[in-house]
Amino acid sequence: METSYRIQKMSEPALLKYYPLVSEAQKKGKKVYFLNIGQPDITTPEGFLKRVNSIDQKVLSYQAPEGITALREAACGYYSRLGLNYDTGDCLVTNGGSEALLFTFIGICNAGDEILTAEPLYSIYKEMAAATDVKLVGFKTYAEDGFALPDPSVIEAAITPRTRAILMTNPGNPTGKVFTKKEIEVMVELALKHHLYLISDEVYREFIYGDEGYQSPAQYDELADQFILVDSISKRYSACGARIGFILSKNQALMEQLKKLCQMRLAVSTLDQLGAVELLNLDQHFFDGILAEYTKRRKIVYDALQNIPGVICKEPMGAFYFMAKLPIKDASHFIEWMINDFDYLGETVLLSPANDFYLNPADGADEVRIAYVLNGADMLKGMTILKHGLEAYCMAFPKACK
Amino acid sequence: METSYRIQKMSEPALLKYYPLVSEAQKKGKKVYFLNIGQPDITTPEGFLKRVNSIDQKVLSYQAPEGITALREAACGYYSRLGLNYDTGDCLVTNGGSEALLFTFIGICNAGDEILTAEPLYSIYKEMAAATDVKLVGFKTYAEDGFALPDPSVIEAAITPRTRAILMTNPGNPTGKVFTKKEIEVMVELALKHHLYLISDEVYREFIYGDEGYQSPAQYDELADQFILVDSISKRYSACGARIGFILSKNQALMEQLKKLCQMRLAVSTLDQLGAVELLNLDQHFFDGILAEYTKRRKIVYDALQNIPGVICKEPMGAFYFMAKLPIKDASHFIEWMINDFDYLGETVLLSPANDFYLNPADGADEVRIAYVLNGADMLKGMTILKHGLEAYCMAFPKACK
Repeated sequence: METSYRIQKMSEPALLKYYPLVSEAQKKGKKVYFLNIGQPDITTPEGFLKRVNSIDQKVLSYQAPEGITALREAACGYYSRLGLNYDTGDCLVTNGGSEALLFTFIGICNAGDEILTAEPLYSIYKEMAAATDVKLVGFKTYAEDGFALPDPSVIEAAITPRTRAILMTNPGNPTGKVFTKKEIEVMVELALKHHLYLISDEVYREFIYGDEGYQSPAQYDELADQFILVDSISKRYSACGARIGFILSKNQALMEQLKKLCQMRLAVSTLDQLGAVELLNLDQHFFDGILAEYTKRRKIVYDALQNIPGVICKEPMGAFYFMAKLPIKDASHFIEWMINDFDYLGETVLLSPANDFYLNPADGADEVRIAYVLNGADMLKGMTILKHGLEAYCMAFPKACK
Repeated sequence: METSYRIQKMSEPALLKYYPLVSEAQKKGKKVYFLNIGQPDITTPEGFLKRVNSIDQKVLSYQAPEGITALREAACGYYSRLGLNYDTGDCLVTNGGSEALLFTFIGICNAGDEILTAEPLYSIYKEMAAATDVKLVGFKTYAEDGFALPDPSVIEAAITPRTRAILMTNPGNPTGKVFTKKEIEVMVELALKHHLYLISDEVYREFIYGDEGYQSPAQYDELADQFILVDSISKRYSACGARIGFILSKNQALMEQLKKLCQMRLAVSTLDQLGAVELLNLDQHFFDGILAEYTKRRKIVYDALQNIPGVICKEPMGAFYFMAKLPIKDASHFIEWMINDFDYLGETVLLSPANDFYLNPADGADEVRIAYVLNGADMLKGMTILKHGLEAYCMAFPKACK
């Protein structure tokens, strides 16, 4: 029995192939540091479960398709603390940021329409595009200049009559790139000039380390009708297991249409919505401690990477990822070898190969993504292991190294 | 800014338009019985919240995309009590039955492919088809013979080279129809003969009132490779607010493909999954009391409908809906009038117009769906109100009546 071409076009996450190897290594007593995934180790604020545990409903019933009012109000309160003026009518609650993106793709694109985005990109965008018959078109950004936006003419050259939107991830996953005010203005102007939607995926918004602070197309009133904000509580509050995301837009006609997709799947989890109210009502100072912790980890990793010969990596200003070029030719082979054949004092690290983050899997062969989601001591150990691993790998496979 | 044709093709649930009217009526002191929606009033088993409240996780982290093992094991245990042999590898956990259907549509159909289903149909199938560029093709069934399957030749005549699947709802929503063993054999044979998937949406499986009991294409080994079971805990355990559904199939190649859609949206709610484990582990006798309660309500409504002149309605054997033909020409107008202009001792009822349950909204103009989701006394009151309402309506609008 055949399946659809659209599902056949989808990929499995590249990193899944390593898990059986990791299991084997662990069975042999090797300790593995998981620097491959964006699962934070920060404790979920206790308000979440407290609220869930105080639920007083005999019947766990459907909630409104667009999300419970208390949660949409809490979200609007959060945005107002960022200086953004959203009403509950501008806000739909979704099953995580993933559903927010999926609904946006379906809602603004017909089959064959195109969405333009920077590469390297969050790999799941590719799967969403395949599932919804959208063509994702990339413009390249590079480790050498910290994944800066290319000249506007490069982006413009990729716009076709089928282009419906520019999708930006800010801060970026996997790059950690935070767009400057000037870069955001470029994208806002391109969207206005070419009559495109601008979608901003800001799930890492609270993880910004520079002085320039939070900048978003959401701040440009002239773009309001064309702007779609995609958000999620997963990373921000270390609540990945609660599936709560948001679509925000001032374009009421669009929101009315997107609401039909919410009605199609009836509702979002009642318990997760109730718990999320407490998270979004947290004081903005809640993030101070977390940001301090990630700032520490980031410095540890950055300093360590600077001391590994041949590594190319500018200091990323956001999220909790480093996208680094290694002095090797095939990162997938290196990552596999690190798990199967290498250890430093009985320990090794698992990294993400970067080819998953490009539209053409031949790209990014010499790059890896490092997630700094472990405590400082473990991150330091991980970087030491990486340094020794690279040395040993280049001794063993000199032709595979640069 | 334009939205996509596919989202424009989607409809808003017809019944939403009545809610502002209901609010007005309630403000004037009118009591409204909601017989329009499938939100059961049965208490959610306390095991659900007990399990959620005993959670011992500091970090509410992502769970496996395919669902937690304990839940897939509990689901397989439940099916084994029905005599069905499913392994955890045959089972994907989804965000409700809705996502199970959405993923199935995407996974087996390309844009323009067709799925065949009986009309009247669950209205949300139409929205899912629009969202995924699938063409839903209907074959009619009728109140006069209890929505029996038509002659196989009628169904066969609707099969085209683009047909990918037959989708059945058993027990049916909105019809309450339970397919007989013979009818199921017809569908199994059609699927085999024409090399189609057979999708069975069985979310009302535990609400079967006849002696024939549970019959499913799942019981036909020869169809295993072509059979997809869609399920949900929402109705069965009165847990609509927990978004837990399932896709089950013995077709491993298909399941590998569908798993990519699960990976695309990362995970299902951790709390809902944990709570659902307790529900699926409940003894099969749990349903006895609920079934007895619904049997009582069903008899009250059926007896009452038999006593309203001109109503056509065979006794439905499943779910908790009656689909009835009324002696009127425009059910939408009647429903609106009942809310705005009618009361019986200060009370009225809200029903679902049936045109939402047909592909062509001109169909079903004289039909309504009645959900028996309230207690027996309220259902009896509701039916008395309906009887008086029909009398008064036909006095006021004789030309709108038959």
